[in-house]
Amino acid sequence: MSLLEQTIGSIKTTLNQEAFEAAKDRLLNQAKPAGSLGVMEDISARLAAIKGCIDVKLTNKRIVTCAGDHGVTQEGISLFPAEVTPQMVLNFVGGGASVNVIAKHAGAIVKAADLGVNYDFDKDLPIFHKKVRHGTANFTKEPAMTREQAVQSIEAGIEIVEELMAEDPMDLLGTGDMGIGNTTPSSAIIAAFSGIPVEKLTGRGTGIDDAALKNKIAVIQKALDLHKPDPSDPIDILSKVGGLEIGGLAGLVLGAAAHGIPVICDGLISTAGALIACELAPTARQYLFASHKSVEIGHKYMHDRLGLTPLIDLQFRLGEGTGAAVCMELLDLATRTLADIKTFEEVGVTSA
Amino acid sequence: MSLLEQTIGSIKTTLNQEAFEAAKDRLLNQAKPAGSLGVMEDISARLAAIKGCIDVKLTNKRIVTCAGDHGVTQEGISLFPAEVTPQMVLNFVGGGASVNVIAKHAGAIVKAADLGVNYDFDKDLPIFHKKVRHGTANFTKEPAMTREQAVQSIEAGIEIVEELMAEDPMDLLGTGDMGIGNTTPSSAIIAAFSGIPVEKLTGRGTGIDDAALKNKIAVIQKALDLHKPDPSDPIDILSKVGGLEIGGLAGLVLGAAAHGIPVICDGLISTAGALIACELAPTARQYLFASHKSVEIGHKYMHDRLGLTPLIDLQFRLGEGTGAAVCMELLDLATRTLADIKTFEEVGVTSA
Repeated sequence: MSLLEQTIGSIKTTLNQEAFEAAKDRLLNQAKPAGSLGVMEDISARLAAIKGCIDVKLTNKRIVTCAGDHGVTQEGISLFPAEVTPQMVLNFVGGGASVNVIAKHAGAIVKAADLGVNYDFDKDLPIFHKKVRHGTANFTKEPAMTREQAVQSIEAGIEIVEELMAEDPMDLLGTGDMGIGNTTPSSAIIAAFSGIPVEKLTGRGTGIDDAALKNKIAVIQKALDLHKPDPSDPIDILSKVGGLEIGGLAGLVLGAAAHGIPVICDGLISTAGALIACELAPTARQYLFASHKSVEIGHKYMHDRLGLTPLIDLQFRLGEGTGAAVCMELLDLATRTLADIKTFEEVGVTSA
Repeated sequence: MSLLEQTIGSIKTTLNQEAFEAAKDRLLNQAKPAGSLGVMEDISARLAAIKGCIDVKLTNKRIVTCAGDHGVTQEGISLFPAEVTPQMVLNFVGGGASVNVIAKHAGAIVKAADLGVNYDFDKDLPIFHKKVRHGTANFTKEPAMTREQAVQSIEAGIEIVEELMAEDPMDLLGTGDMGIGNTTPSSAIIAAFSGIPVEKLTGRGTGIDDAALKNKIAVIQKALDLHKPDPSDPIDILSKVGGLEIGGLAGLVLGAAAHGIPVICDGLISTAGALIACELAPTARQYLFASHKSVEIGHKYMHDRLGLTPLIDLQFRLGEGTGAAVCMELLDLATRTLADIKTFEEVGVTSA
């Protein structure tokens, strides 16, 4: 059995129902109007069900930012040149990027992963070295990668989780991405799964103008028409119109779910990865939290398909794991509200 | 000149434009797509303009939860009995309430204030003792309070800020409320200012049913018809259909603005107070941040009138300062993203 099959097979089919009921019961008895902490209550109950206890501690937090390059950048779909991908990986290592700053605030450690950057990093660089190939092919001309490489990219994500757990077990994982051009495969993925017209799913990425947006839509349509990815086969979609870091992001979700670890996914690209994961293993969704609603219009359709509501909308469109990092603080807070807010009985307040 | 007039007079008419421009410039040069941290960027630039520097430190954070009782509870407008107001004040002091737990996570200190609770607290209780009277009158029969008492409640809020600043200058103030029945005066206040029909502005508070909601709307309408508060006179509105803690909340905003301190307001009741403050002194708005969008339907109309967009919507309807406390972490984070995310030049990344 492959690592991928083995991982999918080891994801539990249900969460801890006893802990979930105990959480719901405590929430109802806390000295506040029933349900008045809204979404925070739902999150805290789900985290209790994942961890099997009321007093969940999310101490060790990790964000893994998966990087990859995209042959389709040849088609002029991004504002930034592809050389920015490796530059930003070095920026993550240096600690000066957006995700580093936000993760630090959330008490999370960021680690970058090379799934398919078109650059040879020094082997001593403290990143996950998981290069499958030097960037995808230009999928307007040929499939982005082979089916084997797609599986390899997902398994690389699973391996990253295994390595993190072996080193120092984490309590919460956040996903993030870096890859110039990667909103294009992400929009292509949700289009392939949903059949929704490409123009409804495609946004401006890092900030392209009207003409470039029109071109981007045409590029995605061309790839879909050429390869006809099978909507019932997530690996077919990933290999034909996906990205190597997107495969890695899918693997992170599957690996975390297999270990019973909550995983919070970031923006359009991370959610494309989460979508691949949950189409392969619907039970993985139990462990998944959607962080923010991106400015990228395709994001909403991904959330709809996953049946998840993002926690915040701060008009982010950055990736890297920035939205996931912001929301780690909210998940952490949710655990505190469940465990630490006292009940009517505990504090002698009259209930309704 | 009264304390109120003096405070309003000392609010600056404009923020530090130089710091604002420097912030905007740095945001544009950070190694990320321009504007990609959305609302976070706007917040950070406004905080820079308030504090007059790029590297804003929000170290000392305070939440003041103003409490008061409401004679209108006689009309059956709340699910909880009025005795819960003093019980919850004691809960805030004990540290077991929702706002305590959330504030602790945000690194903020909570202090309750008695503006008009219908209970005599021990004078040694560590709260702000600012009782104007033992609860408002039932405003379906007479004005909630006199005009003098309305001014006194606002000035009590200003005094609280003065006392906090004298003790240990704060960098950020959050507002919160406690007062059984206080969504009723809050909805009445926005109805009085805006002229919008009461049924469009009135929600279920702590969770009343359809019949009780209908009664609540009728109660508010009756008070507005009886007292005809002058929409151009915030103190007239506060005295006729307001609340003592709402006056205190208005005073907190004015006091903070006069000291150049950013202030983050909580839900429906805190925002009613902020509305009174900003109608008295429109320049106070520069220092004001709306935290969350409450489930209470009147909240939106308050935000519209204030020209503020709430940062989050987690379906809260609790008050106490809970939403303000959650958003303190976001304001703190915003300061870090502005100061600490490196520029393209600093990290050698190619810009677009």
